Amino acid sequence: MSSTRSKLINLLSKSNHDYISGQQLSDALQISRNAIWKHMNELKKDGYEIEGIPKKGYRIISYPNKVSENTIQWGLETSWIGKKVYHRESIDTTQRLAHQLALDGAEHGTIVIADEQTKGKGRTGRHWQSHRSKGVWMSIILRPSILPYKAPQLTLVTATVIASLIKEMTGLTPHIKWPNDILINGKKVAGILTEMQAEQDQINYVIIGIGLNVNQLDSDFEHSVTYPFTSLKIESAKSWSLIRIIQSMLKLFEIKYKNFIDNGFNDVKEEWEQYGFKINEKIAIKTNNRTWNGIFLGIAEDGALLIKNDLEKVEKVYSAEIMWF
Amino acid sequence: MSSTRSKLINLLSKSNHDYISGQQLSDALQISRNAIWKHMNELKKDGYEIEGIPKKGYRIISYPNKVSENTIQWGLETSWIGKKVYHRESIDTTQRLAHQLALDGAEHGTIVIADEQTKGKGRTGRHWQSHRSKGVWMSIILRPSILPYKAPQLTLVTATVIASLIKEMTGLTPHIKWPNDILINGKKVAGILTEMQAEQDQINYVIIGIGLNVNQLDSDFEHSVTYPFTSLKIESAKSWSLIRIIQSMLKLFEIKYKNFIDNGFNDVKEEWEQYGFKINEKIAIKTNNRTWNGIFLGIAEDGALLIKNDLEKVEKVYSAEIMWF
Repeated sequence: MSSTRSKLINLLSKSNHDYISGQQLSDALQISRNAIWKHMNELKKDGYEIEGIPKKGYRIISYPNKVSENTIQWGLETSWIGKKVYHRESIDTTQRLAHQLALDGAEHGTIVIADEQTKGKGRTGRHWQSHRSKGVWMSIILRPSILPYKAPQLTLVTATVIASLIKEMTGLTPHIKWPNDILINGKKVAGILTEMQAEQDQINYVIIGIGLNVNQLDSDFEHSVTYPFTSLKIESAKSWSLIRIIQSMLKLFEIKYKNFIDNGFNDVKEEWEQYGFKINEKIAIKTNNRTWNGIFLGIAEDGALLIKNDLEKVEKVYSAEIMWF
Repeated sequence: MSSTRSKLINLLSKSNHDYISGQQLSDALQISRNAIWKHMNELKKDGYEIEGIPKKGYRIISYPNKVSENTIQWGLETSWIGKKVYHRESIDTTQRLAHQLALDGAEHGTIVIADEQTKGKGRTGRHWQSHRSKGVWMSIILRPSILPYKAPQLTLVTATVIASLIKEMTGLTPHIKWPNDILINGKKVAGILTEMQAEQDQINYVIIGIGLNVNQLDSDFEHSVTYPFTSLKIESAKSWSLIRIIQSMLKLFEIKYKNFIDNGFNDVKEEWEQYGFKINEKIAIKTNNRTWNGIFLGIAEDGALLIKNDLEKVEKVYSAEIMWF
């Protein structure tokens, strides 16, 4: 049933703003025109705005705003990611539930998503503002067959997914601030939090948390002095469908993840550096003990930061905050 | 109250098999002789066999066999490890409960211990036999400030703890089979399972699972063809107090852990290699894809296996099973 509905949405999505006749849908799905009509009514209940005109057919006017397990899965063009979706209206953090599910055996590609996070968290436990239904607050459970020390590279893979999604969708020019923030015009539009559970030489699971600001207005944010936020709406002056963004993100994630697993980090590194913020510029590197300056050369084969220090020596940095002037 | 009892056991332990008078205990603990007498009765209820002889005083004849939060903590000479103990008579795995507790914020040094594990697990999900009250089945929750890629070194730290404990206590000669097994006479007496949960560049927690065979008889084990098991009792022809072993292990762990955190991996590497099994001998290395032979030179600065291959080249191996001839 939901598989039929998924195919139905796919057909309607592909025909874009053109009408597609009831007969065509009936033939393609091999169900009666009456069954098509019933499905259309169910879709409308789920928030799809569908226009049906006699003799012309059907077309989707707009996608539902309401994120749910169904609305994510219907029309989702992936082969393994998002086959299982846990949606919550409100949750402390999607990461916590994802850890729970992963410990209980949740499969590779399981998604946890919420309309709102009451305790959304960023890297090293910092607070992440997750306004209700105005952004994508999602955790992806993965079980990759890679060595634990390579897991941080998945943060960089995910960063290229989000950056290229934003670029393709909005035409804006995003940048990636090492290791886990996506910026537009120097302001933070998305963050990534990669957590893993691993043995000595084997990953049990990785959870990739993604926070993407979509439809917030500037007045929604509590800006910190050092870190201005933005959203796709602020930067593009239009609203975006969360469902479409989520579906496109998952599809793109699946492609780039496969490429990383099959072919290693090289392509990721290259793409990452195209989006890399402040590459070849002087930056400040803040580590536990000290803050020092250097030229940001790019990332190493293992995802570390490559910095040319004052003595013209290249250093590899695994853990730091980077800042600029 | 339990702190007084802990001090009382310490005093009795230190005087070993000599008697210590009620007056001495009363002075040392600054409680009445009647209070001492009451504590003694409580200790007897907890399984301590205590002899009290008028005019001579008290001495401990034997420690309780019954592991509990109290019996572990009374007499435990550590400053942070085991300050919080979760004891279960039977559990699926202590690792699972430890993950749960760690996710809920359990503090550095928290211990989970069980009389019996019904689904005890070894490395890469293999079954670990955990006979009721015949061994130490324990998980230690740690929150070290080290980079995630160094976490596997904690397996090697723990291996030196167990090997040196066995050597000191029993006089037997244990060996460490890289990375996580302790052998006596080529048979497995203990295993270590290190699991961590980490972000990009920060460890949230590490759980070190320890399984140590103590009082099993040979008939207790289901031996696998490739992997014979043994216990301290089988090798030493005597029974051992689980409580004393657990307390000594935690004390030694605290010392060696501190040395590792303060001074890095060098001392660990050196001690590990003293116990290292088949060092400088020809071994077979089984990785995902292939099995090959080489000379086992020792371990690298980062804990990896160093193997000299047939072309006289030294290779670093991070993930493998090692076998011998």
